[in-house]
Amino acid sequence: MDEPLNLVLFSGTDDKLNAAAVLTAGAAALGRPVNIFLQYWALEAFRAGHVDADHGLAPEAGASGAKAVADMAAAGQAPWAETLRQAKEIGAVDIEACSLSMDLLKLEPSDLDPLVDGVEGVTAFFLNAGEGQVVFI
Amino acid sequence: MDEPLNLVLFSGTDDKLNAAAVLTAGAAALGRPVNIFLQYWALEAFRAGHVDADHGLAPEAGASGAKAVADMAAAGQAPWAETLRQAKEIGAVDIEACSLSMDLLKLEPSDLDPLVDGVEGVTAFFLNAGEGQVVFI
Amino acid sequence: MDEPLNLVLFSGTDDKLNAAAVLTAGAAALGRPVNIFLQYWALEAFRAGHVDADHGLAPEAGASGAKAVADMAAAGQAPWAETLRQAKEIGAVDIEACSLSMDLLKLEPSDLDPLVDGVEGVTAFFLNAGEGQVVFI
Repeated sequence: MDEPLNLVLFSGTDDKLNAAAVLTAGAAALGRPVNIFLQYWALEAFRAGHVDADHGLAPEAGASGAKAVADMAAAGQAPWAETLRQAKEIGAVDIEACSLSMDLLKLEPSDLDPLVDGVEGVTAFFLNAGEGQVVFI
Repeated sequence: MDEPLNLVLFSGTDDKLNAAAVLTAGAAALGRPVNIFLQYWALEAFRAGHVDADHGLAPEAGASGAKAVADMAAAGQAPWAETLRQAKEIGAVDIEACSLSMDLLKLEPSDLDPLVDGVEGVTAFFLNAGEGQVVFI
Repeated sequence: MDEPLNLVLFSGTDDKLNAAAVLTAGAAALGRPVNIFLQYWALEAFRAGHVDADHGLAPEAGASGAKAVADMAAAGQAPWAETLRQAKEIGAVDIEACSLSMDLLKLEPSDLDPLVDGVEGVTAFFLNAGEGQVVFI
């Protein structure tokens, strides 16, 4: 289990980002390196000053799903950005923005939250992923 | 090919659940163990008395997609829950609810369909997944 | 890194198809075989005469996301179908339609774009995937 877990984050809704953060924290707790590659709307969610905003939910959540998520937040559940910060403290979690998506969203590295460690292309992502599992979220 | 196939089911729409059931049945037919981990809206779809309800489709399906799916059902296509039941009969298919999502949806084990074998945390999921592929749906 | 990258394409919106095309091109550039399996709405997007149509975006894109994508297209970004064509020229990229989804959408092989190499079932997909990573998009 020395191979990294490699997450391509595409979606930027809070439910999918939280699912990704939970998988990251679980892998980090097991001592496994995690590489995260931010594309499209997930990258948008990692803009500086933007990670703690409301990013909505998948359409299928509906009103009852939105209420369940709001209830969990009110009960003290850590937001996904906080879960990722904690995962970075306990393990080797590297978060990179996709260079093509940086162009798409007209972002500079200084526009990104400090959670993001850098910008790279898709070939660098695959080289770092090695033989490890690749998961698209 | 002794490593399990590991599916994290996040979405609870009938098209994605059917895609997941088909992948599960295919892997089981090849003698491969399958671990399914239910999160968020997929877990909601596995509530007792709820698996055969209409869970909608991805928004992109549109009216023509919805008609195509309804036509297949009318022509006798097995629903995804039935495909999963058959996969469990022919192979080693284990379906676990994510403990965090159980809290989110305020569910107890007795609230779940008998297709679900238990409740576990994300670290248990990763330990069971081992070196096997992890697929997020 | 001799194992193939195996993509199950489910979604047929232009943002997800472009993300898939970029991953394909990156893997092909590294000399890695890529197997693509088309299900549901992704298969719909590969209908003959249909690949260059507007297939919309994920709902979360919103108006600002749609404008960003349109701006990139106006600036000369290759559409996803063109990126896939280029990936097939430089590498071993095989694109197969899922036989069940062919039935669902009432399609014949002659209804598909020449980018699609054939039709196969899910067990054939898994056998070709071997020990390689499986990614659901």
